[in-house]
Amino acid sequence: MSTDSDIEPNRGPEPTLEQPETEPPTPADDDGESTPNDHPESTADPDGEDSTEETTPAEGVPDEPPASFRATIQAAYLKTALSSLRALVDEARIRVTEDGLTVRAVDSANVAMDDLELEAAAFESFEASPGTLGLNLDRLADPVRLASKDDLVQLFLDPESGKLIVVVDGLRYSMACIDSKTIRAEPTLPEFDLSAAVTVDRDALQRGVKAADLVADHVRLRMEAGVDALVIEAEGDTDAVTLELDGDDIEVLAAGEASTLFNLDYCKKLVRTIPAGTPVTLDLGEDFPLILSYELADGDGAITRMLAPRIET
Amino acid sequence: MSTDSDIEPNRGPEPTLEQPETEPPTPADDDGESTPNDHPESTADPDGEDSTEETTPAEGVPDEPPASFRATIQAAYLKTALSSLRALVDEARIRVTEDGLTVRAVDSANVAMDDLELEAAAFESFEASPGTLGLNLDRLADPVRLASKDDLVQLFLDPESGKLIVVVDGLRYSMACIDSKTIRAEPTLPEFDLSAAVTVDRDALQRGVKAADLVADHVRLRMEAGVDALVIEAEGDTDAVTLELDGDDIEVLAAGEASTLFNLDYCKKLVRTIPAGTPVTLDLGEDFPLILSYELADGDGAITRMLAPRIET
Amino acid sequence: MSTDSDIEPNRGPEPTLEQPETEPPTPADDDGESTPNDHPESTADPDGEDSTEETTPAEGVPDEPPASFRATIQAAYLKTALSSLRALVDEARIRVTEDGLTVRAVDSANVAMDDLELEAAAFESFEASPGTLGLNLDRLADPVRLASKDDLVQLFLDPESGKLIVVVDGLRYSMACIDSKTIRAEPTLPEFDLSAAVTVDRDALQRGVKAADLVADHVRLRMEAGVDALVIEAEGDTDAVTLELDGDDIEVLAAGEASTLFNLDYCKKLVRTIPAGTPVTLDLGEDFPLILSYELADGDGAITRMLAPRIET
Repeated sequence: MSTDSDIEPNRGPEPTLEQPETEPPTPADDDGESTPNDHPESTADPDGEDSTEETTPAEGVPDEPPASFRATIQAAYLKTALSSLRALVDEARIRVTEDGLTVRAVDSANVAMDDLELEAAAFESFEASPGTLGLNLDRLADPVRLASKDDLVQLFLDPESGKLIVVVDGLRYSMACIDSKTIRAEPTLPEFDLSAAVTVDRDALQRGVKAADLVADHVRLRMEAGVDALVIEAEGDTDAVTLELDGDDIEVLAAGEASTLFNLDYCKKLVRTIPAGTPVTLDLGEDFPLILSYELADGDGAITRMLAPRIET
Repeated sequence: MSTDSDIEPNRGPEPTLEQPETEPPTPADDDGESTPNDHPESTADPDGEDSTEETTPAEGVPDEPPASFRATIQAAYLKTALSSLRALVDEARIRVTEDGLTVRAVDSANVAMDDLELEAAAFESFEASPGTLGLNLDRLADPVRLASKDDLVQLFLDPESGKLIVVVDGLRYSMACIDSKTIRAEPTLPEFDLSAAVTVDRDALQRGVKAADLVADHVRLRMEAGVDALVIEAEGDTDAVTLELDGDDIEVLAAGEASTLFNLDYCKKLVRTIPAGTPVTLDLGEDFPLILSYELADGDGAITRMLAPRIET
Repeated sequence: MSTDSDIEPNRGPEPTLEQPETEPPTPADDDGESTPNDHPESTADPDGEDSTEETTPAEGVPDEPPASFRATIQAAYLKTALSSLRALVDEARIRVTEDGLTVRAVDSANVAMDDLELEAAAFESFEASPGTLGLNLDRLADPVRLASKDDLVQLFLDPESGKLIVVVDGLRYSMACIDSKTIRAEPTLPEFDLSAAVTVDRDALQRGVKAADLVADHVRLRMEAGVDALVIEAEGDTDAVTLELDGDDIEVLAAGEASTLFNLDYCKKLVRTIPAGTPVTLDLGEDFPLILSYELADGDGAITRMLAPRIET
């Protein structure tokens, strides 16, 4: 694990998703403290810079709300972005610039992370000055859920009340923002040099995860050097499942050696919140975090999701 | 509130739906006792007559079961009538005459009332002598639920056993009637002179009620004098929603000043039990009961529903 | 009741589905012990032979796993067979021969029994030597549930590990078998001379059972000598339902006198697990078990289900 990462593997056989000892004293003071390197065999390439969450993830965007923010987006795009983030966190710092939105969030157990971007081009219209919106994502999802797939959702910050106004087909929802500094700071992004990469349809992943769920509470993803196949497998006390994806089902980008065990509950959350039919690129290593990447907003946005491995003891 | 009404506003901020002190000593003795006028600003026009439930709602129909009752009706018509009534009461006095059926029922907290009529023309066939059926509506709904939308439902009173026989596509359901005098008597109908009236599709109401439910436990309906718009709004502790219906969505019948707060649970019950796509006429005042009216049985029946306001203290 | 039957009527008014005193000391020693004849009026024709479950139900198939077993079947066929059996038992002895599979299972209260056969012709391919698979049916249903209706399911016994391998569209599920001798032995099949028989669509039965469920916890099936009708009726404390099936809805095979009361929960389980639209033949007597028969696998298999009557005291 890279020394500047907040993502930590959870240890088996009983995964500990609650790791209070690794929590920063207060969320706002989270400074990407280093953790012991759990992977002697690691090929990761940590950048070693003393980066902090103040500058790295937000790229200099102030923590204060933007002076102006007004945007219109297809409901389907917003729904996908929200359900991905809500798989991990309830509240998030939405970083706003003239170029669009970015959000980076890690779940409370430091096991999974989302790094999401919606470019200005993803919106029907987008006008904003730099700043940060602190939002309760569950509340934002409420009015968005009332939108039909083809509806447009208008978002704008009311400078007087400081509230975010969400307009959906004549319905106007006014929601209080949260002081972004009270929301847990963004983690720094670890960097890895992973040896295997493959693109696969989300529905195939969903099938493997569902099958694994029949027999175990963890799942292994595996590739062999030089072999064009992704293997999803799970082993319970008496029964086992294996789903081998090959041929037209996958596109192997790097046929390296890879095998890592993951907590199944996290896999289910991550895969469930990827829209059906989405091509997903997986980067895999040997007992390294899994990186899932896919496009948002028909290519005008992207999300990178990271899941820490479950280390067998 | 009119002096001859059993409907009373429930008072906020915590609405009291249970008002045992206003219950008549025994349901059968309910005589429409007068209640203090809660609306100094009221423009209501109580008729002041000493009407009682014995004559007013039932129009002289005897409380005894009819000597004969035999009717056939489309399942969809009966389902709609039953689900409306069942939103408020479990048991009801069904008043039968040669001209059809009438039912008037008030919920146990005296907050909402249904006044329903199905004319003889609403039935495929209808033969009855005057009398009253005391029925458990939940039990009657059971066999009706087994009918397909296009099925006909036959109803007849077996004079020997005194049971109501319900026949649906070869299935014969025999249900015991209840002595109608043991069922709470019908309330007298208050009369109001409400200043605003508008016709709107039930689905638009449903949308407003669902949105209100995201933020609060009450909802305000509002119209402005001379403005062709109906506003549905709700305000929670931090968030608020507003749905403004105008243009083609509504037909304003009287563009008077109106603004009243209602308990959201009651609104949900009432709106949910109106069939999707039904045009509903709303009569509104300033802190006055809401009156919802719509057709039943393609115009051969009608229902008037009344909901007491929730008074803010 | 025939003297060599393990099926016993459960006695009303409170049916006792748990009858531990009639359980054999250990399941594997179940030898079809005789039970007192509960039907003085019985017209049953017990064969009186001292048959045991070792030879009768399994027809000489050894209790050991087959030396080889490899079969492919349409998912829909397997799903139907499994859901029928799972209505009564969790585990079963699957008897395998060159000619196909047979399973006979009785529920733990000795009230209902399934006798099922899938011929080799029911499979896309079938190669097996004689033997018995002890299987947890719930576990087997898990991977089968992941198959689409048109998928093929491959089953084969891995001779090395002794595990049953289930392959569905690239997914390989490996499940442990159970020592078949630890699974309750098959009951012997009672034989009856029932006076009435009728074929009826499963959906009509479902309708009658659902209607009965509105008023009671038991249901009576009734036919009259010389009358082409099947009557399904139930009587509760105050309400009653009757569904008379006649005309094109039924095909009477034997218009004898028959009337028997059954536990409704069992009826619901049995009818629910018959595929919609299946023609089912019912054999009925006077306070005798009900026999339900229908085809599996488009005629290349069959199931006979038996339900003990509920005797009114």
